[in-house]
Amino acid sequence: MQILEDRDKPLSKQSISIMALLGVPIIEHGDDVADAILKTLETSNIQLLDDDLVIIAHTIVSKSEGRVVHVDEVLISGRAREIADQNGFDPVQVELALRESKEVIRSEGALITETKTGIVCNFSGVDRSNAPEDSYVLLPENPDRSARNILRKLTNATGARLGIIITDTQGRPWRKGSVNLAIGSAGINAFKRNRGKQDLYGRTLRSSTVCQVDELAASAEPLMGQADEGVPIVIIRGYEYEDGSERSSDVPRPKSEDLFR
Amino acid sequence: MQILEDRDKPLSKQSISIMALLGVPIIEHGDDVADAILKTLETSNIQLLDDDLVIIAHTIVSKSEGRVVHVDEVLISGRAREIADQNGFDPVQVELALRESKEVIRSEGALITETKTGIVCNFSGVDRSNAPEDSYVLLPENPDRSARNILRKLTNATGARLGIIITDTQGRPWRKGSVNLAIGSAGINAFKRNRGKQDLYGRTLRSSTVCQVDELAASAEPLMGQADEGVPIVIIRGYEYEDGSERSSDVPRPKSEDLFR
Repeated sequence: MQILEDRDKPLSKQSISIMALLGVPIIEHGDDVADAILKTLETSNIQLLDDDLVIIAHTIVSKSEGRVVHVDEVLISGRAREIADQNGFDPVQVELALRESKEVIRSEGALITETKTGIVCNFSGVDRSNAPEDSYVLLPENPDRSARNILRKLTNATGARLGIIITDTQGRPWRKGSVNLAIGSAGINAFKRNRGKQDLYGRTLRSSTVCQVDELAASAEPLMGQADEGVPIVIIRGYEYEDGSERSSDVPRPKSEDLFR
Repeated sequence: MQILEDRDKPLSKQSISIMALLGVPIIEHGDDVADAILKTLETSNIQLLDDDLVIIAHTIVSKSEGRVVHVDEVLISGRAREIADQNGFDPVQVELALRESKEVIRSEGALITETKTGIVCNFSGVDRSNAPEDSYVLLPENPDRSARNILRKLTNATGARLGIIITDTQGRPWRKGSVNLAIGSAGINAFKRNRGKQDLYGRTLRSSTVCQVDELAASAEPLMGQADEGVPIVIIRGYEYEDGSERSSDVPRPKSEDLFR
């Protein structure tokens, strides 16, 4: 029996590798995320190949786009103060969450909003983790556009067919604990469908739609971690995917299809 | 610059490998899932190593435990008939979903239930995909127990420290498309916590809880697929995790903590 002792050696040809890109510098307003990725790849002696997926923690995209607010810039409204007081929340975070939202879905026990880009999440994704001192990081204004811009630059520089997924770690209504999911993407369709595929018994399955960008975002989180690991970029190699017209902004259910609003 | 042309070669030491275990036989009632895994590993010349995770599609666990119901065994109640008629659902699937549930959460537009084991999902997880002709596969009666039993046998046979995750592909209330998630687990804590860890700016983060078993289940689905791939077992190597007392049955929010019921 062959013994695969080497943890870094994959077990068969039908396998996917998920790799942390180490040494990505801290990104500040105006820094170019694609340039930072390309430089880090070069330093790491890594070349992107066709069909590689580049998974990016949204924090560095937000920072590069100036989506960081200092506490001194924030005037707290009466409504934000009220929600904060009732729930023991940080009033600045509540104020920014309200500004980023187009609808408040729950404000008791949690502050769940629909963001202007249609994502339903806690605090409109406004977070203090990995933000500069006394500052808050907002989600990118249009994460699919951000992904598209990064994809264009990486494709131009490398010539490879790539997919980009921008992620955030968010809670779920029915399940405890947060998971990493896709908020922006380019070069890969948001969903995959097994329409027409046959099951083990040779019957054709009815339509089934899987959100592949969320699954891929989730599979990158174990290497990203959430705090001092400082691994905002993960590369996934060996996953077969198709592009299409569906983006991460198509993933949140619109209000009309949401059974729980 | 080093060019990594080989798709199967991981890119750095900080990487995770996800591998499909090919050639797992069709499992029937009374077959032992752990034995099937061990035999397939041997045929494939693969040896499980310490800290490997074995991800198992619940279908084969359900079948081995006899959790398969033939349509002829099902007497459809008036309530099931009514829900099926109103929504255009399969009345047999509705009847089985009601029997498997302890509470119906929605029955218009979707049939969302809380199963007897506390999972909130569509049709109590009752499914026809990959079920024998005219039959339905139910979720395992106690998926954490199933995972524990498989873990014990694999540990005894291999001597390796392992984790087991039993998965199902389910929809989400706020996001379109289904994702693979954990319904049973053993040898790995359901959650990981970054309490006390510092962020990039040296501040200690407040508690943040990530559902690692759901993320790992999601990362296995791309190789499992849902239909004729017939890949019910995936091995994850290179992920560092701890065990603990929290299991997959601790992941669904209890009704008292669910803001949307």
